Amino acid sequence: MKKQKLLVAKIGGNIIEDERALDSFLKDFAKIDDPKILIHGGGKSATKLASKLGVKTEMIDGRRITSAENLEIVVMTYAGLLNKTIVSGLQRYNCNALGLTGADANVIVADKRPAQFVDYGYVGDVTTVNGNIIRSFLDMQITPIFCAVTHDGNGQLFNTNADTIASEIASAMGIHYDVSLFYCFELKGVLENIEDKDSVIEYIDLEKYTELRDAEAISDGMLPKLKNCFDALQKDVSKVHIANADFIKDNTIKHTTLSL
Amino acid sequence: MKKQKLLVAKIGGNIIEDERALDSFLKDFAKIDDPKILIHGGGKSATKLASKLGVKTEMIDGRRITSAENLEIVVMTYAGLLNKTIVSGLQRYNCNALGLTGADANVIVADKRPAQFVDYGYVGDVTTVNGNIIRSFLDMQITPIFCAVTHDGNGQLFNTNADTIASEIASAMGIHYDVSLFYCFELKGVLENIEDKDSVIEYIDLEKYTELRDAEAISDGMLPKLKNCFDALQKDVSKVHIANADFIKDNTIKHTTLSL
Repeated sequence: MKKQKLLVAKIGGNIIEDERALDSFLKDFAKIDDPKILIHGGGKSATKLASKLGVKTEMIDGRRITSAENLEIVVMTYAGLLNKTIVSGLQRYNCNALGLTGADANVIVADKRPAQFVDYGYVGDVTTVNGNIIRSFLDMQITPIFCAVTHDGNGQLFNTNADTIASEIASAMGIHYDVSLFYCFELKGVLENIEDKDSVIEYIDLEKYTELRDAEAISDGMLPKLKNCFDALQKDVSKVHIANADFIKDNTIKHTTLSL
Repeated sequence: MKKQKLLVAKIGGNIIEDERALDSFLKDFAKIDDPKILIHGGGKSATKLASKLGVKTEMIDGRRITSAENLEIVVMTYAGLLNKTIVSGLQRYNCNALGLTGADANVIVADKRPAQFVDYGYVGDVTTVNGNIIRSFLDMQITPIFCAVTHDGNGQLFNTNADTIASEIASAMGIHYDVSLFYCFELKGVLENIEDKDSVIEYIDLEKYTELRDAEAISDGMLPKLKNCFDALQKDVSKVHIANADFIKDNTIKHTTLSL
């Protein structure tokens, strides 16, 4: 039997923090008829709030060192302000959005990342995505909106990378659906040359990925994103795209498609 | 046919902001076998965050004047930090909690309160509770956890009194369930004499309520709470109790029961 289509889209700070760009994205996203899931980050807003509160933000390799104080800020920003702005924004366009952290309905369980070379603090690595409950929500015509917060099932919340959450959710839903995973950001795709915004690499397979990685030809921020993409492709996800947000309404624009 | 029991409980700041009291309450609440719903406030935490951010808090008759800046603080505190602390705390005790604002799954729609004598800003008065979707969650063995945030369906979030939300939810669910509404706070119940913490009025009916109100015998903060109680009783709610949080594990302790 042919599986039903499911879109899993991830948006980052550059859309979320621009009121007009966000509204335009949400309007387009709401129009998609297939079942869909949205995952959002929001690191810049968290950093801004931390700064207003006089709390130090420390990043290592683009990842936030999450002290107890930083975790509170992350939860307030991601699960509170940003998630509910997105949810109410989608309701405006008749998309029945439901905001979730991993703790809500126990949808995403994580383990605290062990302190090895770096102690990231309250950062969680996903261990379980409860695909059945997500599927129940989708069957109710609900669109789940995930922020980058998970929990350990024992009362502890964690900060978890939104790209990874998107990859893990897409992978878990692949059993039930024909899943397309879409990483949406400010550029047009993965660039051959970071100075040239038009130098989009249109197809990347595992071989090309290894080649690019070994040649250190892609930027540090893009590497973990690509890893998340290939993790998903290796686990039941049909298609992965890295593209500009406009791709959601026009899939003919230049972008990067990934395949094994 | 006999309706299934449903407990609708509301907790306020004095429990939420005391880590041990909250944990103890959540542990007891999780043990309740019947379907259940929790509503929480969190005004003190919002005021604390506002003060840290240098944002002025203005209250009139115990209600927050909610500027755009204050609304952001309310959403971060209620829907973010407090709601997710409660949700993850209940998951710890194997209660499958799901945190909600009124915007999530469009469960509570409100109208902006008109500026008459006082302009309360982004404060919403509940117009619709979507009881069917709440019932679907309960049928999934999910325990909905509501914070005091609603929306207008057009992209605007509102600050809404948690006592009123509890009353409106209890009323809406009365069609499907045999609903008990339980306002849980730091005192033992409604007091005859505010100086004497043991002077609990054990039963208040509509006649007694009118008498107390007209004699100005009850405190200003208690009056709107009592109004919410009688609103619920007039709309399909079977029982209403105002009691200490301990009532959740021991319903023999002295408390106030309300009836028509």
